[in-house]
Amino acid sequence: MENNLILTEELLELIEKKRFSAIKTKLIGMNSADIAVLFEELDRENLPKIFRLLPKELAAETFVEFDSELQEFLIKSFSDRELKDIINELYADDAADIVEEMPANVVSRILRHATPEMRKDINELLKYPEDSAGSVMTTEFVNLKRTITVADAIKQIHLTGIDKETVNTCYVTEPDRRLIGIVTLRSLIIANPDQIISDIMERNIVSVNTESDRESVANLLKKYDLTAMPVVDAENRLVGIITIDDAIDVIEEETTEDIEKMAAILPTDKPYLKTGVFETVKARIFWLLLLMISATFTGMIISSFEEKLKLFPALIAFIPMIMGTGGNSGGQSSVTVIRGLSLGEIEFKDIFKVIFKEMKVALICGGILAAVSFIKIIVFDYFILGNLGENFIIETLVVCFTLIFTVFIAKIVGSALPLFAQKLKLDPAVMASPFITTIVDAISLLIYFAVAALLLG
Amino acid sequence: MENNLILTEELLELIEKKRFSAIKTKLIGMNSADIAVLFEELDRENLPKIFRLLPKELAAETFVEFDSELQEFLIKSFSDRELKDIINELYADDAADIVEEMPANVVSRILRHATPEMRKDINELLKYPEDSAGSVMTTEFVNLKRTITVADAIKQIHLTGIDKETVNTCYVTEPDRRLIGIVTLRSLIIANPDQIISDIMERNIVSVNTESDRESVANLLKKYDLTAMPVVDAENRLVGIITIDDAIDVIEEETTEDIEKMAAILPTDKPYLKTGVFETVKARIFWLLLLMISATFTGMIISSFEEKLKLFPALIAFIPMIMGTGGNSGGQSSVTVIRGLSLGEIEFKDIFKVIFKEMKVALICGGILAAVSFIKIIVFDYFILGNLGENFIIETLVVCFTLIFTVFIAKIVGSALPLFAQKLKLDPAVMASPFITTIVDAISLLIYFAVAALLLG
Repeated sequence: MENNLILTEELLELIEKKRFSAIKTKLIGMNSADIAVLFEELDRENLPKIFRLLPKELAAETFVEFDSELQEFLIKSFSDRELKDIINELYADDAADIVEEMPANVVSRILRHATPEMRKDINELLKYPEDSAGSVMTTEFVNLKRTITVADAIKQIHLTGIDKETVNTCYVTEPDRRLIGIVTLRSLIIANPDQIISDIMERNIVSVNTESDRESVANLLKKYDLTAMPVVDAENRLVGIITIDDAIDVIEEETTEDIEKMAAILPTDKPYLKTGVFETVKARIFWLLLLMISATFTGMIISSFEEKLKLFPALIAFIPMIMGTGGNSGGQSSVTVIRGLSLGEIEFKDIFKVIFKEMKVALICGGILAAVSFIKIIVFDYFILGNLGENFIIETLVVCFTLIFTVFIAKIVGSALPLFAQKLKLDPAVMASPFITTIVDAISLLIYFAVAALLLG
Repeated sequence: MENNLILTEELLELIEKKRFSAIKTKLIGMNSADIAVLFEELDRENLPKIFRLLPKELAAETFVEFDSELQEFLIKSFSDRELKDIINELYADDAADIVEEMPANVVSRILRHATPEMRKDINELLKYPEDSAGSVMTTEFVNLKRTITVADAIKQIHLTGIDKETVNTCYVTEPDRRLIGIVTLRSLIIANPDQIISDIMERNIVSVNTESDRESVANLLKKYDLTAMPVVDAENRLVGIITIDDAIDVIEEETTEDIEKMAAILPTDKPYLKTGVFETVKARIFWLLLLMISATFTGMIISSFEEKLKLFPALIAFIPMIMGTGGNSGGQSSVTVIRGLSLGEIEFKDIFKVIFKEMKVALICGGILAAVSFIKIIVFDYFILGNLGENFIIETLVVCFTLIFTVFIAKIVGSALPLFAQKLKLDPAVMASPFITTIVDAISLLIYFAVAALLLG
């Protein structure tokens, strides 16, 4: 149930009738996420006019939800006064994200109108490497001295807390800004007003460094069920916090990247419908080309056995089934291991456990597949269609043995490669189905022809 | 940086020396998530003894982190007194999750030792359908009357809040339990103590129904940047809340399920290393069998063109490349669309936009692949290897035209099928690479032979 929604048609009707105060009343009752969806449907002519109806804080919250193209359009339509109001109302991490996406002339206009403090925060955030904890943290948090009382702490939050991105957790620091403890709002409310902060603070803190990888930070937040993670510099001085909502976005972006890599796509950071045709081509063509060229080696293997294949033409018909089953088997193993690695359930030290398990799974799966194939070939191809020649029993055995070998090798390759990639500090997600399939295709053909040569001479 | 970690070796040494009070001191300074990892490494003989060293609350928090097998083992080792302490210290949603996984005799022992209130909560939670909001919510939350003052609200939280899973948001209800507003702890602290709750509460609430799908609830929490989502029954009466940490677990589980389905695996809900060999086989064999059988149709297509293929044996060598490129192209499109659907970035109504874009991407990708193939075949296969016969120019053209057609069809099929699956209320994730590949394999062969027939007569 989402309350107070206003429909696009309704809004357009009100715009036409110029009933702006009615629009304003409706908008004020809405969530910024819903307003943003609504505004994205408006034409560019009406948008700035309607956007101006929002009160300052709601305007800033809504602005953050837009994609960078729309943000740029709006910034260009803002007066200096309006730009100033919006920019300084933003959280510093959101402002830094926006600045990162804008062209140079817009950036300098933004920084010109930011307060000196906001400008400092933005510049600070921009200097951290991409995908680091520093680049996603916010520099706004509640900072308490350890010597004050609970009553004073509540007074301090009262005075300064309104603008802070999260006050559910407050951070206790020494005068030199070293982080020494945390205090939740909950513990402040529950405590006696006269107690000293250092007596009620939690000293067992999990924190991360500005250089930490943002994905591992998100995983730590999840592991310890925290709503915010303090970020410290090399001297253990508190410089920012990463809030849970930003961590969720990180988890989601990283997962999308993994899924894209698993499907042989170079990651893009835009939603599908907002990515241009050429950008999409650029993200996809690299792997298509690489895999196409590699597949020609598989073709060369077939060519080199061409003469022999002419003697047993029935064997050609089983090539797609053998290659397909090998690819699917290897893909299952690689994707399972890749996901396990990224959730932290599997580590490189588990490699023997993993491979040993995959071998057992492969033998059972391969056995079942071979048995079903055997029955299917005998019943369907031989008795019903009658399209197998005199050697059909041996040919059937060739197919069945090849299936078992292929599944066996495919599952070992599929589970081992992502683990080695991780060990070599490469991205395991790249070792997924398309890549494994191409390798397994070649291997399975070699197995097929070797088994055929052995059994058929 | 994670403070106060104790290593397995250190713990084992302390156990051997029977220095239990030293162990207890170390453990009390640790996080439950870390303690759980440490305890999982212990042998079963020592575990109950060391587990008993934990104070009640930490013991309950640690217990929740174990897998169900270890939980069952521990419950069996508990005295009635210990079981009672742990169970009644748990959050109701965690207790319900545990009960769901236990064999009947353990369940009845748990319920026998739960307080009447906890027993009621567990039973309540167990009756909601799997994957519904009701099944993941917690029934513990802070409930305020709208007529009380801020000071009274703080007093109430002070008295009852300690046991509640989250007090960062409090819920304002009418005497008949209808939800009418929310109040954050932050707004309570910032408000004047004499203000009335109904004057400071937020009336614009996003809530969900007990029957709502848990994944869509997690997505709403994310969309609105909330830390908890109220769950109401059909009469809009507040019955529970879903906290952000549970929502993250839901997002992660659902993503893992999607990734597994995309790799032709039936979803399991256990971590890889804890899934037995037969369970793994069961999850994988279904799709392997189905795709193997389907691939035999591809084989039948090759068989039916066998006679003609004998005239142009060079064409056989290109089959793996054409099928592989088709499968990869279709897989890229399907995975992109599936991810877009599950993130809510794409809907069925976008189908024409999606297909039109994929057609343009396909033509460009297909064109590039064909051009590269043309050059590669002429330079490498003809001039360097010299393994093409008299018809090589036409054969090359057959390969290049087939590539363009195949990529075109593959990208349309790959992007359209997940959208239709969604429309038909099937799971789009099943329409991923392995399934698309099998369809595209057959289509690309038909295209190949049709083009060959056209150009080679």
